Amino acid sequence: MTDLRLQILGSGSAMPTKSRNQVAQVLSLHNKTFLIDCGEATQVQMVRFAVSTSRLNHIFISHLHGDHCFGLIGLISTLGMRGRTADLYIHSHPALEPLLSPALNFFCRDLPFKVIFQPYDHTSTEVIFEDRSMEVSVFPLKHSLPSSGFLIKEKEKERHIIPEKVKFYQVPVKEIPLIKQGADYITAEGEIIPNNHLTSDPSPSKSFAYCSDTIYDEKILPYIEGVDLLYHEATFLHEHLAKAKSTMHTTALQAATLAQKAHVHRLLIGHFSARYDDLSPLLKEAQSVFPETSIVKDGTIFDL
Amino acid sequence: MTDLRLQILGSGSAMPTKSRNQVAQVLSLHNKTFLIDCGEATQVQMVRFAVSTSRLNHIFISHLHGDHCFGLIGLISTLGMRGRTADLYIHSHPALEPLLSPALNFFCRDLPFKVIFQPYDHTSTEVIFEDRSMEVSVFPLKHSLPSSGFLIKEKEKERHIIPEKVKFYQVPVKEIPLIKQGADYITAEGEIIPNNHLTSDPSPSKSFAYCSDTIYDEKILPYIEGVDLLYHEATFLHEHLAKAKSTMHTTALQAATLAQKAHVHRLLIGHFSARYDDLSPLLKEAQSVFPETSIVKDGTIFDL
Repeated sequence: MTDLRLQILGSGSAMPTKSRNQVAQVLSLHNKTFLIDCGEATQVQMVRFAVSTSRLNHIFISHLHGDHCFGLIGLISTLGMRGRTADLYIHSHPALEPLLSPALNFFCRDLPFKVIFQPYDHTSTEVIFEDRSMEVSVFPLKHSLPSSGFLIKEKEKERHIIPEKVKFYQVPVKEIPLIKQGADYITAEGEIIPNNHLTSDPSPSKSFAYCSDTIYDEKILPYIEGVDLLYHEATFLHEHLAKAKSTMHTTALQAATLAQKAHVHRLLIGHFSARYDDLSPLLKEAQSVFPETSIVKDGTIFDL
Repeated sequence: MTDLRLQILGSGSAMPTKSRNQVAQVLSLHNKTFLIDCGEATQVQMVRFAVSTSRLNHIFISHLHGDHCFGLIGLISTLGMRGRTADLYIHSHPALEPLLSPALNFFCRDLPFKVIFQPYDHTSTEVIFEDRSMEVSVFPLKHSLPSSGFLIKEKEKERHIIPEKVKFYQVPVKEIPLIKQGADYITAEGEIIPNNHLTSDPSPSKSFAYCSDTIYDEKILPYIEGVDLLYHEATFLHEHLAKAKSTMHTTALQAATLAQKAHVHRLLIGHFSARYDDLSPLLKEAQSVFPETSIVKDGTIFDL
């Protein structure tokens, strides 16, 4: 089991194509499942790619264009028919709740679970979800309407115990949790054993940043700096820069430039315009600037 | 080109499966395209099966369960992005307009065409659309909420001119349209040539009836009597009759019984529950009563 798994459910943009559905990605982290954006037919893609929703409790919507949220009502309706009982949290711009609620009330009467809207401020960089092991924060993107990126990162992990040292110093089991968190150990004789004699550094914490939809904007660099995996939209080839600018989208070259400037480890590009049948020119263009680029396709899994 | 072509876009019921999308069917008749029901991902299926929307001006929604209408907002949004300008008529229960309008206003601002809601009375048997060559009427079904069937039939066609007779009587060209409509011809000498000396019977008018969703109900028989093609839902096998009754759906056996009693020419069954992977038992069950039964599958075309 890897720490972080990203599965693409939709790699297209507003107009679906034969091979590219509207936007949706499933992130699995520490046995939790998060859905990021939910374009039309997301529930169909979940069936197609056998995505389990049993641990899905949080959905994050980047902005209120239809290709990022038209699938919510159908997904929620189906989760209800399947007998789900756990609360479902939808993190989004505040305007979603008054739009979706009348449809929920009409089409999903007697839903056996609660849909809880958790609006966030798209101008802020706040943490919108956290638990013991991870946190999700938002940061502003620049699009034709309020749009936000998501930074999902593991919290610092516990230090690794060095078994032979723990045995040598006869550390009692009840002390281990504190030592994993960095505490020194004081022996019965009062001797202080520094933590770094007993432990080694924790496994690195993984991070994933999601940026869709947005025009090229270097203001996001501090938020995505050094992430393990960056997904950035690349709706157009750079030869269509004028179109990218007028629709407030990014080119493959620009997405790669941001990845390079932010020193990320790996870049995924997607949200491709329906005009492109062959995606290899988009990949080549991005790789010319940032070689560690992959294109996303419906169904593809990226493990970290 | 056949007179009437039906293409299935979704053969499933509420929960989509890997092979069965939610409900939608495209009917082509006299170079017009009609969409009947519009479950989620109908626009995706249209792309997948290369369905042209250039002649699509009327959408008929049988009832307001999500699997019959969740695809409307996405389809309309995409038609707008493609630059459609012709008015689009949606025929449905009156409750659809107040549900869909807020979403249209928010997600489809500046739509380059008008969406015109044409509510119909689900208790009536009125004609809800007609033109020179065809008409669409509704009739009540029995479901857990107001649900309607659609009867789509060609009007009586023009009689066929018998060329050698027209030549023999030297009928002027300007008289031909009236003669095609059944008029006799009066020669310059005042002789009456009866129409049936000049023409042969018109090609038979085609008819299609659509019944989804409904419990078994013989009250629909007068409306579907003798149609060329009957689509009737068959959500369950007859061994699941109790489930069919409690959810107000029909079994394959019951759909076939209605087809037989109504003397239709051909029966299509669909709207299959997600519980059935193999559909052959449903087909066998219906054919045991009404041999001219076919099951519908996503993408299948039926030509009349």
